[in-house]
Amino acid sequence: MTDLPKAVLSIIHGRKSVRSFKEGGKAVPKETLDEIIKAAFAAPSAMNLQPWHFIIIDNRSILDALADGLPYAKMLYGASAAIIVCADTKTSELAWELDCSAASQNILLSVEAFGFGAVWTALYPQKELVSFVKKLFHLPENIIPLNVIPIGYPKGEEAPKNKYAAQKVHINKW
Amino acid sequence: MTDLPKAVLSIIHGRKSVRSFKEGGKAVPKETLDEIIKAAFAAPSAMNLQPWHFIIIDNRSILDALADGLPYAKMLYGASAAIIVCADTKTSELAWELDCSAASQNILLSVEAFGFGAVWTALYPQKELVSFVKKLFHLPENIIPLNVIPIGYPKGEEAPKNKYAAQKVHINKW
Repeated sequence: MTDLPKAVLSIIHGRKSVRSFKEGGKAVPKETLDEIIKAAFAAPSAMNLQPWHFIIIDNRSILDALADGLPYAKMLYGASAAIIVCADTKTSELAWELDCSAASQNILLSVEAFGFGAVWTALYPQKELVSFVKKLFHLPENIIPLNVIPIGYPKGEEAPKNKYAAQKVHINKW
Repeated sequence: MTDLPKAVLSIIHGRKSVRSFKEGGKAVPKETLDEIIKAAFAAPSAMNLQPWHFIIIDNRSILDALADGLPYAKMLYGASAAIIVCADTKTSELAWELDCSAASQNILLSVEAFGFGAVWTALYPQKELVSFVKKLFHLPENIIPLNVIPIGYPKGEEAPKNKYAAQKVHINKW
């Protein structure tokens, strides 16, 4: 294997859900957040409709307000930034969940490549969580927040899982 | 930027939907398909439920049968292999579309890293396409095929798009 696939696979396999961030750890530089967001835009989308929007949060009190209201995203208290991946459901009625998920995966992989840690904390399809974030950010009716991705400097507690399962690989037939 | 983020971002931004494959072009080696599938398994999933299955197709007549029945996947006639990403909807009722989309993105990025080309041709949520593939492969009731990803050696006709749109980036507020 040459160096390029090796590098990419090392990040794909090295990515893990990071839920514990170093207090006082290195903050995510603005330029790095910009690169991560640009990576998100590079995802494919059904009929190239690109139904995504991204909210970057690097304001301490907004990160804390999100953590207050989201039972599964308490790690936001220790995160130095977060990205909310949103869908414009008017732009793509059928496939926005898929498109925004591909964009989210680009975010997670870029974060890992830059040496930071992140985790996909789901909002959609949990109605109360979606509704809390819609209210907090006064999102338009047609905008649905898919997830909140807290980003920070990892404590180093989490390791990637090996999830390969040969019985889930089918060759030429089920 | 150090070499690792640079390499990963080059693949994220270099990935494009490849719809024209070189006739008689280099076939995708079995070992490469295995690496691509392993990358798919490394995706995150809601509550770590890993609801995915993968069908690898490298049989010419099955690739052609798929192309015959799928109006938007005629490039399968020229592909040397394909992967069908499936969801076990019993394993994860709520979030299988999201999880399988993240796995699909890992597939597309790995294909690009190895120098091959691929394209996400949607099945779900188009009922007739899903139903055609379910019948062709005799898939169990609870298994839904999300997409077919043809893979081959690119003719070099497609280039990545720059889809960055500053108005879709929101800082700390909508």
